Amino acid sequence: MFSNTRTARIEWGDCDPAGIVFFPRYFALFDHSTTLLIERALGMRKAQFCERYGFEGYPVVDTRARFLLPTRFGDDVVIETSLAAIRRSSFDLTHRLSLDGALAAEGFETRVWSVRDKTRANGLRAEPIPPDVVSKLSAS
Amino acid sequence: MFSNTRTARIEWGDCDPAGIVFFPRYFALFDHSTTLLIERALGMRKAQFCERYGFEGYPVVDTRARFLLPTRFGDDVVIETSLAAIRRSSFDLTHRLSLDGALAAEGFETRVWSVRDKTRANGLRAEPIPPDVVSKLSAS
Amino acid sequence: MFSNTRTARIEWGDCDPAGIVFFPRYFALFDHSTTLLIERALGMRKAQFCERYGFEGYPVVDTRARFLLPTRFGDDVVIETSLAAIRRSSFDLTHRLSLDGALAAEGFETRVWSVRDKTRANGLRAEPIPPDVVSKLSAS
Amino acid sequence: MFSNTRTARIEWGDCDPAGIVFFPRYFALFDHSTTLLIERALGMRKAQFCERYGFEGYPVVDTRARFLLPTRFGDDVVIETSLAAIRRSSFDLTHRLSLDGALAAEGFETRVWSVRDKTRANGLRAEPIPPDVVSKLSAS
Repeated sequence: MFSNTRTARIEWGDCDPAGIVFFPRYFALFDHSTTLLIERALGMRKAQFCERYGFEGYPVVDTRARFLLPTRFGDDVVIETSLAAIRRSSFDLTHRLSLDGALAAEGFETRVWSVRDKTRANGLRAEPIPPDVVSKLSAS
Repeated sequence: MFSNTRTARIEWGDCDPAGIVFFPRYFALFDHSTTLLIERALGMRKAQFCERYGFEGYPVVDTRARFLLPTRFGDDVVIETSLAAIRRSSFDLTHRLSLDGALAAEGFETRVWSVRDKTRANGLRAEPIPPDVVSKLSAS
Repeated sequence: MFSNTRTARIEWGDCDPAGIVFFPRYFALFDHSTTLLIERALGMRKAQFCERYGFEGYPVVDTRARFLLPTRFGDDVVIETSLAAIRRSSFDLTHRLSLDGALAAEGFETRVWSVRDKTRANGLRAEPIPPDVVSKLSAS
Repeated sequence: MFSNTRTARIEWGDCDPAGIVFFPRYFALFDHSTTLLIERALGMRKAQFCERYGFEGYPVVDTRARFLLPTRFGDDVVIETSLAAIRRSSFDLTHRLSLDGALAAEGFETRVWSVRDKTRANGLRAEPIPPDVVSKLSAS
């Protein structure tokens, strides 16, 4: 399965009055990590593959995370994201965020490949993941 | 155990290009809901009880969430937050977010009562939850 | 000209390691205040008037703000928003945010009434503000 | 005067339902750009110089911005940040954000060098900028 590693700097504006990351920001870091993985697998930017596949994104339907060590503004963290499973219209990812080699946070998420549901105002509905996307994501 | 219900308006700035809530924002909604529950139980604002108990917050160490129905800007959601367990220095909460009576999202989180660890720069460490806080949170 | 006043609670997640509001969050507070003003003037939610008028929002093209007093998590601030000018396809607003009666921040913004420009992928273009919108916003 | 240029990727979570950057996010981009400039001038991370100079940050007291062209998720923008003026306890910065060589947004801000005011709970007060900081920021 596909995986991707990136670094990110924890910013002042990511942190709360305790001086550590406000935890919802970890999910924003994971969300962008997922996009970077898919972009690398497909060789296109998200704006391009949304247009190419006429789709509206891959909303998260289930997520879990553990926060083991706090991170602070100025920290450069490494986020390793891996595809863990791929099904007909959904897929699972794991994220491991580490600081100086120590695991600081880990996340797991299930996302659904979604298109506009034209039968309802602003509706979204799950759609089978296109075969070439499955094949590119399944490559190691 | 203590519980608290509040309403919140989903804002334009909470939503992403698919027109639905950017899911990390749900965790920010849950975080504020937790604070409102504790404030109501203790009869004080967070700024006051941080000072009173010399503590630095209650960072999340473990969380899970499921997102069942999308919510959109302009939606008024109801968030019901309940204390689920309370231990020596940590506690669990559940959040149920509903839209027009239908469950749209639910969250679960474990938080640790934390104080400044003066032996390390910007360190935090777990501390037993003060007995009067336990007693107030345990009241129904 | 139309004006609207609301209160907002400063949340833990709005604040930075100095314990005060991370200033970009003031602009999010102002953005929502603008929407509440327009919603009240038109008697509809933003999702409804986006659909009714086939438009994509009112992006800010120019803004200024002064921050006079810090605000902190737990503070209940009052935000008074007023329409200051309305032109063919743009309009100006002012925001005055106060804490315990003292002016803490003020903002000024120019926004453009925008529709989808179908000649460019994801393009937006300015459009004259519909006459009934002008008339409702101009009412005092 | 010191200046610094960086690139940033506009993320899905930075964008609103119109598909463009939610404008408060530009201020977060500018805020981090300011920190990167000061870090480069001083040769230290913000966490380090906060500790070294016993200070609490450099809150914005005045800001202006113009948004000329929309930017979208997936765009790689270039942000050029320059120190524009430095006074006893405050300093001015300009930011020019461009996309494919075209100016998309520009910002201006005045910030105050601030320390903890121990005479008030959670108070901040302006402090003269240390001479070596002035000298490093004034270098070209």
